[in-house]
Amino acid sequence: MREAIKEATSGIKAKDGGPFGAVIVRDDKIIAKAHNTVLFSRDPTAHAEINAIRAASKKLGKDMSGCVIYSTTEPCPMCFSAIHWAKIDKVVFGTKIEDVAKLGFNEMPIKDFTLKFLGNLKIEIEGDFLSMECLELLSKYKKIKGETY
Amino acid sequence: MREAIKEATSGIKAKDGGPFGAVIVRDDKIIAKAHNTVLFSRDPTAHAEINAIRAASKKLGKDMSGCVIYSTTEPCPMCFSAIHWAKIDKVVFGTKIEDVAKLGFNEMPIKDFTLKFLGNLKIEIEGDFLSMECLELLSKYKKIKGETY
Repeated sequence: MREAIKEATSGIKAKDGGPFGAVIVRDDKIIAKAHNTVLFSRDPTAHAEINAIRAASKKLGKDMSGCVIYSTTEPCPMCFSAIHWAKIDKVVFGTKIEDVAKLGFNEMPIKDFTLKFLGNLKIEIEGDFLSMECLELLSKYKKIKGETY
Repeated sequence: MREAIKEATSGIKAKDGGPFGAVIVRDDKIIAKAHNTVLFSRDPTAHAEINAIRAASKKLGKDMSGCVIYSTTEPCPMCFSAIHWAKIDKVVFGTKIEDVAKLGFNEMPIKDFTLKFLGNLKIEIEGDFLSMECLELLSKYKKIKGETY
């Protein structure tokens, strides 16, 4: 998660980067890391998790069994579904979507989405991990850029 | 939808393509079209809809308001969420996910997902459009490649 926070920090420093970072790990080795580049690439799918999965697929192919993805923010439904398709075993996230939304960031209005996924998919989920540090990334972004993402 | 079916047909003909096609249209003009390339690119996010959105973003940027996406199969949660992020107004799809799953294709086990989205998101949805022709694409793929996707 420290690496994911570093990634998000580099996203904040980048001209058009976002304050969201993700890292994919297998056997204690970092396979890929990425931050959100939606504004930079003008690609609405370029969330941190999707970017990390795309980068990891160049090394591992489409089957990422045995991998854990660390994300500074709870994955949105798009990213959660991509994690499912990539067969990633476990998600560890920092800030909850509802706390991100409270800061004024644009989040999807899906209630209990993660819980529904938990009931249907076989992905282990651990939340609220270093959540205060992850939340600070967003406040920092808002302060520096004068806007939400 | 005819163009989306053509795209899916070219996916079937391609060595590692998938039998799913998507086309993004604005003001009666085709902005982008794509088929599933998960096996070819080894990228688990490379569904037809995501590929089409990525291609369209090169022309329109991340805001695709005013666009309609035609997809030969009901979008999975990943693609539906991407359609939301891209601000696409309307989805027209052919075959329902449950009918695709019945043919043995790998689909996400999310019940009532579309209905939940309908209640929360502002995307107009029209299903079962040329669904028999879209379903035939999958049977054809199964017959030619001897497997599901």
